[in-house]
Amino acid sequence: MTGAIAGATPAGAEGLAFGDWMKSVQARTEAALDAFLPPASRVPAKLHEAMRYTVLGGGKRVRPLLAHASADLFGADDDTAARAACAVEMIHAYSLVHDDMPCMDDDALRRGKPTVHVAYDEATALLVGDALQAQAFEVLAGSTVAPQRLVTMLRLLAEAAGSAGMCGGQAIDLDSVGLKLDLEQLERMHQLKTGAMLRVSVVLGALAGRELESAELDALGAYARAIGLAFQVVDDVLDATADSATLGKTAGKDAAANKPTYVSILGLAPSKALAEQLRGQAHAALAPFGDKAQRLRELADLIVQRKA
Amino acid sequence: MTGAIAGATPAGAEGLAFGDWMKSVQARTEAALDAFLPPASRVPAKLHEAMRYTVLGGGKRVRPLLAHASADLFGADDDTAARAACAVEMIHAYSLVHDDMPCMDDDALRRGKPTVHVAYDEATALLVGDALQAQAFEVLAGSTVAPQRLVTMLRLLAEAAGSAGMCGGQAIDLDSVGLKLDLEQLERMHQLKTGAMLRVSVVLGALAGRELESAELDALGAYARAIGLAFQVVDDVLDATADSATLGKTAGKDAAANKPTYVSILGLAPSKALAEQLRGQAHAALAPFGDKAQRLRELADLIVQRKA
Repeated sequence: MTGAIAGATPAGAEGLAFGDWMKSVQARTEAALDAFLPPASRVPAKLHEAMRYTVLGGGKRVRPLLAHASADLFGADDDTAARAACAVEMIHAYSLVHDDMPCMDDDALRRGKPTVHVAYDEATALLVGDALQAQAFEVLAGSTVAPQRLVTMLRLLAEAAGSAGMCGGQAIDLDSVGLKLDLEQLERMHQLKTGAMLRVSVVLGALAGRELESAELDALGAYARAIGLAFQVVDDVLDATADSATLGKTAGKDAAANKPTYVSILGLAPSKALAEQLRGQAHAALAPFGDKAQRLRELADLIVQRKA
Repeated sequence: MTGAIAGATPAGAEGLAFGDWMKSVQARTEAALDAFLPPASRVPAKLHEAMRYTVLGGGKRVRPLLAHASADLFGADDDTAARAACAVEMIHAYSLVHDDMPCMDDDALRRGKPTVHVAYDEATALLVGDALQAQAFEVLAGSTVAPQRLVTMLRLLAEAAGSAGMCGGQAIDLDSVGLKLDLEQLERMHQLKTGAMLRVSVVLGALAGRELESAELDALGAYARAIGLAFQVVDDVLDATADSATLGKTAGKDAAANKPTYVSILGLAPSKALAEQLRGQAHAALAPFGDKAQRLRELADLIVQRKA
């Protein structure tokens, strides 16, 4: 499917095969990110060009897929769903830019391209990340959804991105290099580092549609917790088994950096079994939503069964 | 005046001498920042400790002073005024942490203390900045002000912090090292780098009180534009004339780094005259608000007449 055809597919089109739905959302996300980012011609041109280099041109778009699947389930309007999807993707993209910098993971390759500090320079990478975080809040704040709900969405995004979420998990990760974490500590770290943003992707998509009852929020939370952990377990499995070309980033880095992983703690086969178990938990959490949650189920399958 | 006495002074107390009002706002801001930052005991403790090291314990608090002066003028409630003041200060504080990093200005001293990457390490400094930006949005989003107005405030904060504001100005600043900027280009850079956050400090304080008519917004904008430029002109004058101990940061850096400054373009005496002229413009812009804008007038005086 070409981008043009995918872009013409209506939002949340029912009856699409999962692969086609996914490509459609990815294409719409690419177009929306392009529209929500400042043009590369606008001053300061180098910063804007680097922001676009960072965000556009691919990636799995897992967080936008989650946001859109959830938005479809809760009847969100297209614009707010796109804003929620782009906001979480911009936060994710900024975190990758900063994580790749020499003072953090010092990685030269991301999504098969030179990382931002390599393609540009460190100062630009720092500013790109900073500006993308602000851009995420600006994009979400531009929604015309009911203001009370939008304030909640903005607050939840900030919580998930900050020291009680993604940044906090990153800090724990940094401090855990060379330490012997147990399974519980490893899980807590990943629930912050990756889980918080995956969870808020699902929740923002839903809130883009309507207010949630607490039972609905609990069910989405349980789903997000399961896929968040599964995502990380599979990441660790792939880091231990796939090659750099397949991953689009440097493979085997965690073991080389002496970072604790599910594979290093549990072993390879038990890690794969855990991912399958978490996939089952994710499906079970969605039971209250019935058939309409099919896309979220399929995304749980994708997260566990992906090869990169 | 001690912190305890200052803390007991009621918000916006009329009749206080300016110096006492300023100390009162600074003390209330310190207490509010302390309350809005995660405790240092909370995991990840090192990150939270470093966030508190960054934000607490002083600074001139120019942006909170502007926010509170404006909030008083427009009748804001204490909580929303404090949240606006702390949000802009957290954005400012994060920008200093990132600006001081080796890949940017590589500065070891800030407010008379070792900079964050020196006191901790570069990775922590990066995360402290990232987490503080998220914290700023979280703090502001926690206000109970009318949601429609709060969404506007959050959007304006994001715009001022991002590539069309502070980050954009920083990018232009980086690219201008060694270039010969003319006065207009220098002004445009500073209007983004420093001016955008000063302006939004004034505007958020006002919006914390009520919706603004466009004439009011224009007047506040003209005031903020004048003090924003004056702030930078005075910074350049001080960088050229004061010593590091007085400034609490390394003096003479701009000239050493071959950065264009008002002093290098205009000379010292004309720069001082320009600052005075801008002070007059700031006063004139406040004329529609009458006597009630006295604190904003006094802040313009402070910005021009400060010695550090």
